[in-house]
Parts: sequence; structure tokens; C-alpha cells
Amino acid sequence: MANRIITISREFGSGGRTIGREVAVKLGIPCYDNEIIEKISDESIFAKEYVEEHGEYVPSGSLFGRMFAGRDMSGGSPQDQLYVIQSNIIREIAEKESCVIVGRCADYILRDKADLLKVFVYAPMEARAKRIVELYGETEDEPMKRLKDKDKRRAAYYQIYTDMKWGDVRNYDISLNSDTLGIEKCVEIIAGLY
Amino acid sequence: MANRIITISREFGSGGRTIGREVAVKLGIPCYDNEIIEKISDESIFAKEYVEEHGEYVPSGSLFGRMFAGRDMSGGSPQDQLYVIQSNIIREIAEKESCVIVGRCADYILRDKADLLKVFVYAPMEARAKRIVELYGETEDEPMKRLKDKDKRRAAYYQIYTDMKWGDVRNYDISLNSDTLGIEKCVEIIAGLY
Repeated sequence: MANRIITISREFGSGGRTIGREVAVKLGIPCYDNEIIEKISDESIFAKEYVEEHGEYVPSGSLFGRMFAGRDMSGGSPQDQLYVIQSNIIREIAEKESCVIVGRCADYILRDKADLLKVFVYAPMEARAKRIVELYGETEDEPMKRLKDKDKRRAAYYQIYTDMKWGDVRNYDISLNSDTLGIEKCVEIIAGLY
Repeated sequence: MANRIITISREFGSGGRTIGREVAVKLGIPCYDNEIIEKISDESIFAKEYVEEHGEYVPSGSLFGRMFAGRDMSGGSPQDQLYVIQSNIIREIAEKESCVIVGRCADYILRDKADLLKVFVYAPMEARAKRIVELYGETEDEPMKRLKDKDKRRAAYYQIYTDMKWGDVRNYDISLNSDTLGIEKCVEIIAGLY
């Protein structure tokens, strides 16, 4: 596989998705993010909303009690089936062309399978809280509470399916603090590494 | 304080020191590394070898039993005194001029005190093992064993004096895998951020 793939893992609210899109534009390659969700939804029985939520997060609610909710150990639960479909689609995409892929354990799914640049984008809680309110507006839950919930559930998802620790620097080629460096600088660095 | 300081925290054998030196040359600013050791040794009762070892590592030997060896809780042990002297010298340097500072908890010591770019350089164990044998030659201990020992003792030192987790991505602005990115690319990125 001669394609070069940039995978962007990101904390919720860190601007990783925006960075991925801008890197792709700069390099003239596609960026897969919502496109993956739509593709899975089109090619499976899963609704878009289900894929969006269960393809990157363990179910919400009490984390410890429900970390394994929606899956069984035989690998046949809906969430496990979704993971398999998602993995196949990510592999197909990587097989087809050079691109940017945001989230969804693509770094793990494509390990040893493609020429990867593995990026992690993060930011301090306060900066992310500000960003999600700007982007998605206020909700019933405080932004800090929303972030903590999202962080925990995404970390748990990553841990379950990759058996690696989410956000551990050693899983990536480069990790960027989008708050102190700024979105534009992050885009520039990643595009420059391609 | 208007000076701009680049702090480079690095895993032993990752090439972080080399990267720091090359960044400094590229930017035409000084790089402080061994200079700090010499400065402390000149201005205190501590021998150069003592500073080199005890200014960045907890004492060797069984880690758990000896994590607190060489210090007492009143802050008056030789290692604690060395930390205070080292901190003062690092602050003086940062006060004087823009520069690169390698290791020695400078990122923590200068927090909120200077315009900082905090960098972490790491590499997989195998790459570091290869590098330390090339640089320092073979020793009685296997390179992997030397690395693990250095890693543990440096992490413990950092934890004791900063109360933060060593190598936690959230302590830095940018983290770079010097093995997959290459030394030259790391230098280019850091200098480009300055």
C-alpha cells in the first residue's frame, strides 16, 4: 500500500477535526470524518446517529458499570459489529487513496498496514470548554461536565478496542497542544511533515 | 521577562539533547545543558558528577525503597539543596536571555515565569537502545536495562519535584517522536515554532 495516511486522534473540543480538514485542503487530499459515518450507515443496518455515537464512545451513563454495555465477549454485540464494519471501511479508504482520517481508532486499525503519520491533538479543559460552547452552544449540562463525560467514554472505547491507553504520547508520531500552538500552526506543522 | 525560552524534556537516548543544540544553533541563541551542571558545580559545594546524576535522577538501586533516599521531608537533604540551587540558576538564565534549556525540570521551574515553548522528545525503546550504544558504547548492563533504569529514575525525580507525571503529553506544547520523524525534522519544527 503506497498511500500516505494522516490519522488525527483528538480530544473532544480541541479543534482536531478542523485541523484535519484544513490539512487535507492544504495537501489537496480528502479528509474522512463524517464521510465514514455516512458510509457505514449506507452500507449497514446502523442509523447515522448510532454510528456517530457508538463508533467512538462507550455508552453514556455510569462508566464503570456500563463500560461493556452494548457488547458481549463473543464479539457479536451491535457495538462490536459496528467496530468490524468501521475497521473494514477505514482499511478500504486507506487502500484507495492518500488521505486524512479523523478519529475512530484509525491509527490502530491501520497500524503496520499503511504509511502513517499519527497525530494527537489536545488542549486544556478550559480552552475546550470555551470552544464547544462557541461551536455547539449551551446545553443542559455544564461544558466541563460534557467534556469529562466525552473524554472518559472515548478513552474507554479506545482502550477496549485497541488495548492501548488513549492519549499516551507513545502511540503517536507527534502530539500538539492546539490551544498554545494555535490551529493554524498545527495545520502548518502536520502538512509540513507529509 | 520578555525572553523566549524553549525547554526540551527528553527520554534518555531519544536525541533530545542533540535536537536542543541544533535548534539553538539554527536560532542563534544559546543552549543550556552541560553548562548548567558546570555553573552549579562552580557556584556550590557539589561536584560536577554529583550534579549530573542527582540533578535529574533519583539515586540508583531498588527504586521503591530508595525513591526518597538522599532527601528528607524538611527539604534540607543534599538532593533538595541541589534542586533549589539548580532552580535558581535556571531562573537566572531565563531572566538573562532567550535560550534553549535541556532537561532538569526547567519546564516546571519556569512555569508562569517566562514565555515558554515546552517540548517533549521521545522514541521507542529499541531506537533509543541503538542510539545509546552508538553514542556511549557498550557497558556491563544491557542497553535496555540501562534505559529502563534511567527512565524510571528520571520519572521519579520529575514526580518528586514537580508533582506532575513525567512524559504526560498535557505538560507540553508539543511532543515529538524523534525516531519516526527524524532529528532534522524535529529541529525544523521546533525552530519554526519559535
